Amino acid sequence: MDLIYSERHRLRDPRTELNGGELVTPFECPARVETILARFRARGLGTVRAEQAFGLDPVRRVHDADYLTFLQSAWEEWAALGYDGEAIPSIWPSRRMSLSRPPRDIEGRLGYYALAAETAISPGTWEAACASADVALSAQALIANGARAAFALCRPPGHHAAQDMYGGYCFLNNAAIAAQACLDQGADRVAILDVDFHHGNGTQAIFEERADVFFASIHGDPEDAFPYYLGSAAETGRGLGEGSTLNLPLPPQTGFERWREALSAALSAIAAYGAQALIVSLGVDTYKDDPISFFRLESEDFRRYGADLAGLHLPTLFVMEGGYAVAEIGINTVNVLEGFEDA
Amino acid sequence: MDLIYSERHRLRDPRTELNGGELVTPFECPARVETILARFRARGLGTVRAEQAFGLDPVRRVHDADYLTFLQSAWEEWAALGYDGEAIPSIWPSRRMSLSRPPRDIEGRLGYYALAAETAISPGTWEAACASADVALSAQALIANGARAAFALCRPPGHHAAQDMYGGYCFLNNAAIAAQACLDQGADRVAILDVDFHHGNGTQAIFEERADVFFASIHGDPEDAFPYYLGSAAETGRGLGEGSTLNLPLPPQTGFERWREALSAALSAIAAYGAQALIVSLGVDTYKDDPISFFRLESEDFRRYGADLAGLHLPTLFVMEGGYAVAEIGINTVNVLEGFEDA
Repeated sequence: MDLIYSERHRLRDPRTELNGGELVTPFECPARVETILARFRARGLGTVRAEQAFGLDPVRRVHDADYLTFLQSAWEEWAALGYDGEAIPSIWPSRRMSLSRPPRDIEGRLGYYALAAETAISPGTWEAACASADVALSAQALIANGARAAFALCRPPGHHAAQDMYGGYCFLNNAAIAAQACLDQGADRVAILDVDFHHGNGTQAIFEERADVFFASIHGDPEDAFPYYLGSAAETGRGLGEGSTLNLPLPPQTGFERWREALSAALSAIAAYGAQALIVSLGVDTYKDDPISFFRLESEDFRRYGADLAGLHLPTLFVMEGGYAVAEIGINTVNVLEGFEDA
Repeated sequence: MDLIYSERHRLRDPRTELNGGELVTPFECPARVETILARFRARGLGTVRAEQAFGLDPVRRVHDADYLTFLQSAWEEWAALGYDGEAIPSIWPSRRMSLSRPPRDIEGRLGYYALAAETAISPGTWEAACASADVALSAQALIANGARAAFALCRPPGHHAAQDMYGGYCFLNNAAIAAQACLDQGADRVAILDVDFHHGNGTQAIFEERADVFFASIHGDPEDAFPYYLGSAAETGRGLGEGSTLNLPLPPQTGFERWREALSAALSAIAAYGAQALIVSLGVDTYKDDPISFFRLESEDFRRYGADLAGLHLPTLFVMEGGYAVAEIGINTVNVLEGFEDA
């Protein structure tokens, strides 16, 4: 399968991440995709292609206009305040606040549009986020044109980003934008399978009231793991989307056997739904040595579940999400693709 | 008038505050109250008394039990994770999350109970917060016993703390706890006048559906200032409390003349309400050189408005809130008290 890659991901290179009460070097770093790219090339899996420019129209199909306007100017507005630090929100519309409108001040708008404070906005963030969406759309075009599968090596990732919220290292929801593109090109039903360790809260929020996208997620139980406030099994979609969301939260120390049972349940549900295309939100932070996660998958397990995914026999778009064990991220990610190809 | 002071405020001494994308030395620091205490003594305004212990019963009249349980153990639970940093939330129940329940994990609970991330929980925070509530209750006892006025030199401050939320340097809402004590001792109607630069969102949240406490606040317009998401003039109370909240937001660079007009409106409303006691949430961050605020009051203006407050002829409890120009905080605070006494 071919891989789409943008050099512009390097524009996203923040200095700081709020973690454990300190500002640390971000886990979500440029080396992640370079490592994956090198492994993909070393294994000779397919052609590496540059992204094409799709502009903001397909992005606007998923994200609110006011949010995009905010993201586009946030860094410049913050920098104008003269701070030495990167743009990190320090207050947000909490439970006993009014949630109705973004305030005028940039610090207030940061908190309004953020869902988490670990994700600093830095110079180039907007440009890299747009490039990442282009990567997803370019790979989507490959499967639309008949490829069995394609790999969008997106960075920054996307699955935590909602209609008008950023955080969890995500700004634009690449998987959601690609799913919407499938629909806009004529598909009736698309499935997004999120195998990242963290619940894809943004993807769920975008589609939870719709029946044309089925969202299934296997993730660390939000009682114990980021993003904490969404992703329980009780959330099954709302309104027209009732029954189109499937959350499979799993406890700390979950190993591959139990994880694969959840995957099997998700694949059965996707098959029953009748999806015409599959988008895999591919995070490999389920790996046993991931520094910020708590599942126990081994590198070979990624190959096994890649083969399981092929069993759906659907045009399949892999969209890169998380994974922070940088030394092994290339092996684990490409193992999924190889398992899929070899099945 | 007499002053109540607790040495236990020093137990609240965090190393870090998230500000401008950096971790800085907290603006809300022990030197604040020591400076005020020294000025109070130098001016011979009254007796300095130690706080008495009231226990948690009067605190529970205002704050939710689950929140107090959280605050009491938060530092120990965080420290058990082994982080080097203080306890700072990095995610919260944002607009598109489920707001219904605190998760199991301490990082998820931090974000659930926090309204802002500048306020690190550090060793001794709970003990200092309890002492601060005792200071307020001890001073309230003085006016209950017939004193014309008393000064609760509270630290940490309280007015941002809601029923079950901390932030803005606040953990327990000292002014609200004192107001509730007045009611529980037989008063029918109490007024809280919040002259801190920042809107007293916690106090508003606690009383907004009740008619027995009138809340008036003069503050930086939340379109432009912390806490951003509450404090607009359109908020006038809800349900039984409709008409018992009066917000008077003012724009950047507001000077004393315009500020005093707002004060006059607040005092008229309090008189019309028929309050039997006045609690002043006394922040002096309206000062022109305050490092995190944008009003323009001069030191002499504090004396003038202290005299204005005396015009209500109500038993008056001053409860210390904010003020971060430490060199002038003693002069400005004691000027209010002297203006009141001399009127």
